[in-house]
Amino acid sequence: MHTEMLEAHPKDLGGIDKDKLADCIAACFECAQVCTACADACLSEDMVADLTTCIRTDLDCADLCVATGNALSRRTGSDARLTRAFLEACATVCKACGDECAQHAQMHEHCRICAEACRRCEEACRALIATL
Amino acid sequence: MHTEMLEAHPKDLGGIDKDKLADCIAACFECAQVCTACADACLSEDMVADLTTCIRTDLDCADLCVATGNALSRRTGSDARLTRAFLEACATVCKACGDECAQHAQMHEHCRICAEACRRCEEACRALIATL
Amino acid sequence: MHTEMLEAHPKDLGGIDKDKLADCIAACFECAQVCTACADACLSEDMVADLTTCIRTDLDCADLCVATGNALSRRTGSDARLTRAFLEACATVCKACGDECAQHAQMHEHCRICAEACRRCEEACRALIATL
Amino acid sequence: MHTEMLEAHPKDLGGIDKDKLADCIAACFECAQVCTACADACLSEDMVADLTTCIRTDLDCADLCVATGNALSRRTGSDARLTRAFLEACATVCKACGDECAQHAQMHEHCRICAEACRRCEEACRALIATL
Repeated sequence: MHTEMLEAHPKDLGGIDKDKLADCIAACFECAQVCTACADACLSEDMVADLTTCIRTDLDCADLCVATGNALSRRTGSDARLTRAFLEACATVCKACGDECAQHAQMHEHCRICAEACRRCEEACRALIATL
Repeated sequence: MHTEMLEAHPKDLGGIDKDKLADCIAACFECAQVCTACADACLSEDMVADLTTCIRTDLDCADLCVATGNALSRRTGSDARLTRAFLEACATVCKACGDECAQHAQMHEHCRICAEACRRCEEACRALIATL
Repeated sequence: MHTEMLEAHPKDLGGIDKDKLADCIAACFECAQVCTACADACLSEDMVADLTTCIRTDLDCADLCVATGNALSRRTGSDARLTRAFLEACATVCKACGDECAQHAQMHEHCRICAEACRRCEEACRALIATL
Repeated sequence: MHTEMLEAHPKDLGGIDKDKLADCIAACFECAQVCTACADACLSEDMVADLTTCIRTDLDCADLCVATGNALSRRTGSDARLTRAFLEACATVCKACGDECAQHAQMHEHCRICAEACRRCEEACRALIATL
């Protein structure tokens, strides 16, 4: 779907790697949804008081991943400096959220899944930065 | 992924149909991304001045689909009245955006794809409302 | 600022009451920020386990208030049916969040402030619906 | 309101400058709303075809300012590295959006107002970075 939309864009994509871009858009929206769901699952755990940093990092990560996925989905008048600013912030926050969730991955399956989504998104951001 | 996260939730999902819920979450995030991309593709068309209502409706739909996808992803303390409020607004806006994009579907492939994503999301919202 | 931007819009505002519209946009963004802050303050309370429904409702309300504030800020190709769909959902969710926060208002100052922001936003939505 | 909510937070704010933080949160939400409104006002201009880069930058800036305003509003388990990542990206995008809008400020009042909101937000982000 992401590739299909990129191919339907009326303008040239400005030399950006289309496959890595489509991967990164997909990873951002997946990570956003999973982080929102993980924050809520943590909130429903009996040990919620031990998961407050995890919830907070999930919420930051969800917000930034949607903003980044949206910015990457826009190709009109693209500016590599801005693309890089979004991607670097997103990679930094995904790394922190992935590290936080990984600490609870053995106890909470939702944190395990979320840590993986964060890693994929961090890697997709870094792979796209490398092509800019 | 959406089903996997729902199954990892520590609490009972409150009697909501898990498959329809997972479908609706996926449809909301897909529709959000496609509407953001369609608004931008319209902006890059030479005939942008004829597509301003389409761009505006795409932006409204993108915002509401993310809000609805997030609300549906949360299961802690769920309240069917609130779920219904999100779903009814989302179905209304997806219907309007799908109708608008369908008018440009023969001329612009991105509008055709977007009209389909809006229809799928509208139907997923209505299917979930029917189970509440 | 909201009134200033509405007055700078190049098109007629389609007969909507400009003062009530500016009030409602301001109330939506204020409520969004306060709900995000209240969810986080609840998360930092020692009794967080008793505040999970409040946190969840705050998060839903924050998301919908931003989406509604954005939609109201857009006047291009406005459609009263869509404006109404956003406003009715937003009033419903603000009512629920205001009621939930009001239950904790005597114990938590952040819930008291948040209950008031939700009430103001609910009323601003209903006042604007009445003019459509 | 932002200061009131920060003072109602149950935990210590982690040594961050409370006034600069409250200013920055307010500037982020103001800039988000103004950018959304400016994108829509540009869309309604007869010369929309000359404003497509401005619209696109406004949309990116609106998304990132909400994400940053939300992240700053959360004080639970705060991490200065993440705060800095949000603020640096936000300052970069506000700078670019302010520069773009400033080019149209003499012709379009909405771009003049938006350029000012972007400058205020950029400065508030840089002032807060300096205290971290």
